[in-house]
Amino acid sequence: MEKNGSIVPAEFPELKNETFLRAAQGEQTEYTPVWCMRQAGRYLPEFRETRAAQDFFATCRSPEMCCELTLQPLWRFPLDAAIIFSDILVVPQALGMEVVMVPGKGPTFPEPLKEVEDLLKLQQKVDVAAELGYVFQAITLTRHKLEGKVPLIGFSGAPWTLMSYMIEGGGSNTMAKAKAWLYRHPEASHRLLTLLTDVIVDYLVGQVAAGAQGGTEEGRGLKVAPMLQALQLFESHAGHLGPEQFAEFALPSIRSIAKRVKNKLLEDALPAVPMIIFAKDAHYALEDLAQSGYEVVGLDWTICPQDARQRTGKDITLQGNLDPCALYAPKEKIGELVKKMLEGFGSQRYIANLGHGLYPDICPEHVGAFVDAVHIHSRHLNKCS
Amino acid sequence: MEKNGSIVPAEFPELKNETFLRAAQGEQTEYTPVWCMRQAGRYLPEFRETRAAQDFFATCRSPEMCCELTLQPLWRFPLDAAIIFSDILVVPQALGMEVVMVPGKGPTFPEPLKEVEDLLKLQQKVDVAAELGYVFQAITLTRHKLEGKVPLIGFSGAPWTLMSYMIEGGGSNTMAKAKAWLYRHPEASHRLLTLLTDVIVDYLVGQVAAGAQGGTEEGRGLKVAPMLQALQLFESHAGHLGPEQFAEFALPSIRSIAKRVKNKLLEDALPAVPMIIFAKDAHYALEDLAQSGYEVVGLDWTICPQDARQRTGKDITLQGNLDPCALYAPKEKIGELVKKMLEGFGSQRYIANLGHGLYPDICPEHVGAFVDAVHIHSRHLNKCS
Repeated sequence: MEKNGSIVPAEFPELKNETFLRAAQGEQTEYTPVWCMRQAGRYLPEFRETRAAQDFFATCRSPEMCCELTLQPLWRFPLDAAIIFSDILVVPQALGMEVVMVPGKGPTFPEPLKEVEDLLKLQQKVDVAAELGYVFQAITLTRHKLEGKVPLIGFSGAPWTLMSYMIEGGGSNTMAKAKAWLYRHPEASHRLLTLLTDVIVDYLVGQVAAGAQGGTEEGRGLKVAPMLQALQLFESHAGHLGPEQFAEFALPSIRSIAKRVKNKLLEDALPAVPMIIFAKDAHYALEDLAQSGYEVVGLDWTICPQDARQRTGKDITLQGNLDPCALYAPKEKIGELVKKMLEGFGSQRYIANLGHGLYPDICPEHVGAFVDAVHIHSRHLNKCS
Repeated sequence: MEKNGSIVPAEFPELKNETFLRAAQGEQTEYTPVWCMRQAGRYLPEFRETRAAQDFFATCRSPEMCCELTLQPLWRFPLDAAIIFSDILVVPQALGMEVVMVPGKGPTFPEPLKEVEDLLKLQQKVDVAAELGYVFQAITLTRHKLEGKVPLIGFSGAPWTLMSYMIEGGGSNTMAKAKAWLYRHPEASHRLLTLLTDVIVDYLVGQVAAGAQGGTEEGRGLKVAPMLQALQLFESHAGHLGPEQFAEFALPSIRSIAKRVKNKLLEDALPAVPMIIFAKDAHYALEDLAQSGYEVVGLDWTICPQDARQRTGKDITLQGNLDPCALYAPKEKIGELVKKMLEGFGSQRYIANLGHGLYPDICPEHVGAFVDAVHIHSRHLNKCS
C-alpha cells in the first residue's frame, strides 16, 4: 500500500455496499441509501477530541487526520457513503490566498479580493497535484482504510461560492461585496469564475484518480464499478443570487465542470463517477440543475419533495432534504418526518440526506435515529410497492 | 395640531399622490408607484448625521426623530410612499424584553428566551398604547409633516420572525435555537406565537388609528380614501422554515393578523387600509400568501416576476423585487434591470420596490436612478399597452 513512502492508489478492497452508487446511477435499490452532509463534524465528541487544539487547515493538510475524521461517523452509524474530510476553501488557498480559521468566527481571509486588479495576485496556473496533493493522499489512504465498506465521495466548492468567500473575506449575511462585483465588474467576475472552474476541474479529476483503481480495465465503462467514488459540487451561496444572476454567473460554470470532468476522466482512462450538484436555496433553478450534466441533484429543506420530483423529471436522482433542525426533535418525531420525506420522494432514484450540513449541537443519537429511520421506512415502502 | 401638549390625529392635509394606494387596492394607475424598504436608512448621509451618537432605540422612542428620518428620503426622491421609521424589535420590548443595539453587531437581547419557562417572564397582557404610544405619536406627527405628499406605511414584524429574534438573542445564520423550539416545544411555540399575534394586532390597529382621520365618516368604507395609510407585515425569517414548518408556525399567524386587524378596524369605525405581507424567501408558500388576506404580496429577488404572476393569480397586487445589490450597478444598467422587471410584472397591480431593504453602502444617486426608471418605464409601458 505504500511505495517509496508515499500512499499510492492501488489494490483497494472490494466495495461491499453499492447502494449509494446504484441510486446515484438510477438503478433499483433494496432500500434508500443515506449519508449526511458534514457527517464528519463537530457534533461527534470523537471529532472534537481529534481536532482539539489543532489548527483547522493543518488538519486538512494531514492525510492521516482527514482519514480518521472521515471514518469516525461510519463506526457509529450504518451510513451508505463516506465523504472525505476537507474544506471548500482549500481551493482559494491553492490559488495563493491566505485563509485562516478564527475560532468563534469561522474561516477568514486576511486579504480578500478588493479591486479587480487583485485578480493578478492569484496564481494564474495552478499545479493542483502540488498544491492539493494532500487531499489526494487523504483520499487514497481513506479508500484503503474504508476496507470497501461504502463508497467515498470527493467534493469541491463551486466557483460562485468560492468567489464570494474570496471577496467577502469570510461569512456574510448579504454577500453584498461579492454581488457588487457581479453588477459592477461582470467581465472580471467571469475571469475569476473561469480561473476557479479550471482549478476545480483538475481538482475533481485528481480526486477520482486518487480514489480510483489506477486506470485498470475493470473499473472503466461499467455503469456501477465497485471501485468508483462519487463527487459533489457545493454551490452553498446560490440563494444569494436571483434567477438571472445564477443563470449568468453560476450555472455556466456548474455545467462546464460536469462536462469537463467527465471528458477528462474518459481521456485519462479513469472510471466515470456519478456527480452531485447541491445548489443551496436555488429553488428558482431546479429545472436547469436537473439538466446540467449531474446524475444527482441535492436539495435544501425549503423544497417540497413532490414538487422537486415533478419539476426535475424521472431521469434524475434526488438527494436530500430533511431540515437539519429536525434532528432536534424527539426520535419518534424524526421517524415520522423521515417517513413523510420518503413518501414524498419515493424510495427509488433517491438518496436520503439532510438539506444542509449537520450542526455542531445536534445529538449523535438523533443522527443515528435519522439513518435507521431511512433504512427501515424505505425497506417497508419497497415491500409495499 | 397639538392638544394639551400631545400630538393628536386630526385635520390631516389632503393626500396629493394616491398612486401607491390605488395600486395596492387593485385600481388602474398612470404609472407604477415605487418605494424602497429601508428607504429611511444609513445609506443617506443626512440619516447618519441625525442618528449620530444617538442610541438606536432612543431614536425609535423620539417621535420627532422618527418623523425627520421618515421624511428624509422624500426630500431627495419622488417616492410614492413613506414608511414610518421604527424597528420590528419594539414589539419584544413591549413584551418586557431588553433589546440593545450593539454597533457593528446589530440588535442584541442580553437575556434571550432559553427555556420554555422563560415565557412566563413575558408580559402576558400588553397595554400597547402605553408601551408603543411613541410609535403612534411618531405616525401622527409624520402624517401632519408629510403634508399629504404621499401615504404613510406602518409596519410590524411577523410573529415567527420576532420569536426567532427573542430566542436567538440577535442575528443567526441558521436560526437553529429558534427552530429547535419549533421541533422540541411545538405547544410552547404556539403559545408564544399567539401572544405575539395578539400584541401585533393591537399594534397595527393602533398605527392606523394614529394615522387615520380619527374615525370621521369620510375615511370609512371608501375603497381608496385619501387619508388611509397602509400596513406591512415583515416575515423576514420565513426562508429558514421549510414548507411544513411555515404552514404550521408562520402562516396561521399571518392569516389571523390580516383578519383580526380588518375586523377591528371595522369595529372601531376606522378606515380600511391595504395590507402587505412580505415573507422573505418563502418561495414555497407564494400561493398560500396570495390567499392569506392581504391586498399585496411582497417578493424577494429570488422570485421570477412572471412566475410570481402566474402563481398568485390576477386578484392580488405584487410588490418588489429588484435585488438591492443591483443598485451597485452603473445607472444605465439599473435602468435596464428596472425595464425588465416591469415587463415581467406588468405595470398594473404592481408596486415597484427592492427585494429586501437598502444596504448602507448603496449610493443615494443610484436609488434615485431606480425610482426614476420605474416612473419613466412604467409610463412608457402604459402608453404602449
